[in-house]
Amino acid sequence: MPAWDTVAIVGVGLIGGSIGLALRERKLARQVIGIGRRRESLEQALSRGCITQISTSVPEGVKQAQLVVVCTPVELIPRHVAEAAAAAPAGCLITDAGSTKAQLVADAEKALTAKFPQMVPFVGSHPIAGSERNGPEAAQADLFAGRVVVMTPTERTDPAAAAAIEEFWRLLGADVMKMDPEAHDAVIARTSHLPHLVAAALALTTPQDGDCRPLIGNGWSDTTRIASGDPELWRQIFLANRGPTLNALADFETVLRTWRHALESGDGQLLTQLLKEGKSRRDAVGS
Amino acid sequence: MPAWDTVAIVGVGLIGGSIGLALRERKLARQVIGIGRRRESLEQALSRGCITQISTSVPEGVKQAQLVVVCTPVELIPRHVAEAAAAAPAGCLITDAGSTKAQLVADAEKALTAKFPQMVPFVGSHPIAGSERNGPEAAQADLFAGRVVVMTPTERTDPAAAAAIEEFWRLLGADVMKMDPEAHDAVIARTSHLPHLVAAALALTTPQDGDCRPLIGNGWSDTTRIASGDPELWRQIFLANRGPTLNALADFETVLRTWRHALESGDGQLLTQLLKEGKSRRDAVGS
Repeated sequence: MPAWDTVAIVGVGLIGGSIGLALRERKLARQVIGIGRRRESLEQALSRGCITQISTSVPEGVKQAQLVVVCTPVELIPRHVAEAAAAAPAGCLITDAGSTKAQLVADAEKALTAKFPQMVPFVGSHPIAGSERNGPEAAQADLFAGRVVVMTPTERTDPAAAAAIEEFWRLLGADVMKMDPEAHDAVIARTSHLPHLVAAALALTTPQDGDCRPLIGNGWSDTTRIASGDPELWRQIFLANRGPTLNALADFETVLRTWRHALESGDGQLLTQLLKEGKSRRDAVGS
Repeated sequence: MPAWDTVAIVGVGLIGGSIGLALRERKLARQVIGIGRRRESLEQALSRGCITQISTSVPEGVKQAQLVVVCTPVELIPRHVAEAAAAAPAGCLITDAGSTKAQLVADAEKALTAKFPQMVPFVGSHPIAGSERNGPEAAQADLFAGRVVVMTPTERTDPAAAAAIEEFWRLLGADVMKMDPEAHDAVIARTSHLPHLVAAALALTTPQDGDCRPLIGNGWSDTTRIASGDPELWRQIFLANRGPTLNALADFETVLRTWRHALESGDGQLLTQLLKEGKSRRDAVGS
């Protein structure tokens, strides 16, 4: 018997599509309703087997759901959580997959207050899985296997909802860890948002002339790869996590100033120290 | 019949080892002498089939060579070029595989002046192929296939030597392009040295605490991958190409200041512009 009868996924891109695929392949849900604005994406997700039904309306699509997973861009998530909560049957649980948490969770909880003045059946989630690719065509059933999903319960989260949603992610193969929304945002600024900023800035610093292109090797390609991500999704992420990203950027600028000093003064010892420490931190993570 | 009877390779790491493997697999040389200080590396290169003979002395190892390829770290290359030229038979050609060219080529040409007061049988080369891995165990016979090798002939280069060395790289499968040593260094600072600096600085900005590690995803790993490169090799590269690297770093810092301004002022339009332009330059290069 499947763990869930009906799961609704709002936004069937890479993450939403992969959740659907994983639910289907692992036989965890009898039906998976894909909800989105663009019928074309929904049809694609349906034909790839990510979802079993299509809806272009959140209130329509969640009518039978025991679980709603909101996988839309971060600026839209609080509204979709609220729309889902308003239309879903009693007992329906809601989570999301947004890359930022503090403001988003606060906004979502606020939007749920009218219907749920005390505890809310929503808990924020962030699967640390993704790529520079987008859309249901990039979805993979094993996207979450062995990956971390951060959950950010607050004092308003219904503990039973949090436990069920934790089980949901575990059934998709993920390792769940819990953090405060603010702590999540501070850490993710350093492990994801600053790297994206740096990759995009590096790509932008590389001249587009014919002389440069042939001299681009694997190093440049690796270092700038994530700059290919969707600018609209990333604009929203940066705006939603400005403070922590600026803190991380300030630390990066400090390191760059040390590098500049080492180069200007031709200080080989300092260069070695910077290179060794960077290598040591990189090697500690593995490929 | 092989194109060369005897090729000597000084330094049998990733690049030197791969040259040897390619020469052997493509049957381009009857014998390949591997020259190095560490007998262990040489034995490893021999057992992998990168070379056919071993020597721990440059003068000894080049005695029969028609071609010497110097693949040692950039600070050692001019001396090894001079040692090879002093001991090699008449007509022997010499090239290198160093990542910087202007100072190195000037030093090598100067060191050759006593024996070759006019034209020199040396031309600088830089294969745009490599990885964060080192040593003959990482060597690949197809490392140069379809890759660019930049050659940097000067007014002192013997044109016949340059033509023969160009043919050598082509026979390994590479596309050869020619540039001034200074032009090479200016471009490579942007396509390779600045990316390395940025990757190392980003790795260094990431705290090593337990909270950070689980939130590290593919984006961070890609963006910092080359920080795993050998610190000693890279110290030498940065010291040999300080000026152009500082120019590239200055442009990068300018882009970062625009990013900082966009974040501080919450300017979504500017963020979109920065992200779109970074994506466009990254997408133009491909995976």
